Amino acid sequence: MKKAIDILIDKIKETNNPTVIGVDTRYDMVPDCVKNKYGTDIIGMCNAMLEYSKSLIDATYDIIPAVKLQSAYFEMYGIEGIKVLKTMIDYCKEKGMVVMVDAKRGDIGSTSKGYSNAYLGKNIIDGEKVDIFGVDFLTVNPYMGTDCVNPFVEDCKEYNKGIFCLVKTSNKSSGEIQDLITEDGETIYTKVGKLVEKWGEECRGEYGYSSVSAVVGATYPKQLKELRELMPHTYFLIPGYGAQRRKG
Amino acid sequence: MKKAIDILIDKIKETNNPTVIGVDTRYDMVPDCVKNKYGTDIIGMCNAMLEYSKSLIDATYDIIPAVKLQSAYFEMYGIEGIKVLKTMIDYCKEKGMVVMVDAKRGDIGSTSKGYSNAYLGKNIIDGEKVDIFGVDFLTVNPYMGTDCVNPFVEDCKEYNKGIFCLVKTSNKSSGEIQDLITEDGETIYTKVGKLVEKWGEECRGEYGYSSVSAVVGATYPKQLKELRELMPHTYFLIPGYGAQRRKG
Repeated sequence: MKKAIDILIDKIKETNNPTVIGVDTRYDMVPDCVKNKYGTDIIGMCNAMLEYSKSLIDATYDIIPAVKLQSAYFEMYGIEGIKVLKTMIDYCKEKGMVVMVDAKRGDIGSTSKGYSNAYLGKNIIDGEKVDIFGVDFLTVNPYMGTDCVNPFVEDCKEYNKGIFCLVKTSNKSSGEIQDLITEDGETIYTKVGKLVEKWGEECRGEYGYSSVSAVVGATYPKQLKELRELMPHTYFLIPGYGAQRRKG
Repeated sequence: MKKAIDILIDKIKETNNPTVIGVDTRYDMVPDCVKNKYGTDIIGMCNAMLEYSKSLIDATYDIIPAVKLQSAYFEMYGIEGIKVLKTMIDYCKEKGMVVMVDAKRGDIGSTSKGYSNAYLGKNIIDGEKVDIFGVDFLTVNPYMGTDCVNPFVEDCKEYNKGIFCLVKTSNKSSGEIQDLITEDGETIYTKVGKLVEKWGEECRGEYGYSSVSAVVGATYPKQLKELRELMPHTYFLIPGYGAQRRKG
């Protein structure tokens, strides 16, 4: 079975486009022409967000290889919002896109396993192993170290899934912790970068890249270049290039 | 209006008990006598988990001041599991407990605001500001720095809520990043600890502690003592003491 990273790279080659469309749908960003078709209660709001999110996919799925759904913007509408997230995951998969959920999860080992079961792996329901959210890639926060990230890596291997691990993030204050210099002269982000490269060793695909990938912000080009050299087998998800910058 | 941390401390005084009950209900941990009342499909499983989780609260709410619900174990049952999480949040609040959701969220500023709207603050539904999950305390991952944590801190101020920010976590590999020593001789966890103490400055309550609190694992007593001295206004949530250790 093909590795997640190879599926992504093949899709990028097929569309000749390395872009990921980010679907961060908030109700106040939905155009009135869509809003007006629905009520203003939570069900109506979520239906409007769903229609608008689907229309973004309809307009792009044949030219953009992958979609990143931002979990926060669905969670902030509660259960109904998370239903929209699940519907969108399924919709994007039906359209043949590689589906990433940006949820930045991570916890102690047994709890990370719970998150991994939810998004990448499977959970046992009615005696059978089934997909829960069933996504291809999940973003992961590495602050807790190897035993936090390992359950995700194990599911990457078992189910041919992928993760993007935060290394150097695109936000303004990312340097407060990530840029600190250790006593041996290395930054925290290079330390984390090396860990990610190591975590991904057994998940490398036919193009030489690993399904254990990294988030490196384009807002820090110097660091991006440095990490690119340090992490030769790690694929980069690069936020901060394009519209996101306007949002802060 | 009373600050979240003061409500928690009052409740600890009232019960004369500083314990937090962790509700990490997985279906395979539910006793057969409860399981057997329900079907084995997802609805039946979630009803069994709900009944068992409620029974843990019924047995403890008058002697334990606070509950910590682990989001991962609800997310791994998908939408139906998250419904149980929401029902449990409401149930524990009805019982008068301080309700913490352990979700370790955090992202760039605008996205952290989404998470904060979901758990601590409010979101606008049908023209009105309403609680979504409506919890008292949320755990937050600080790897992305101040602008990631700030939206949560703002909602702590506006809505009298609280956060527990990861500083030194209880897991085995927490030291890989958190124990790194910077060029000025300080560890990452003390750097983060000082940031948390600063982030919480404007959220201090009548007991001198801030609603912006910290997670410091009891599995590292030396670091716990060091941080206790460094962070005089920061309340600590201390996992790793008691049953959690057996789970690894």
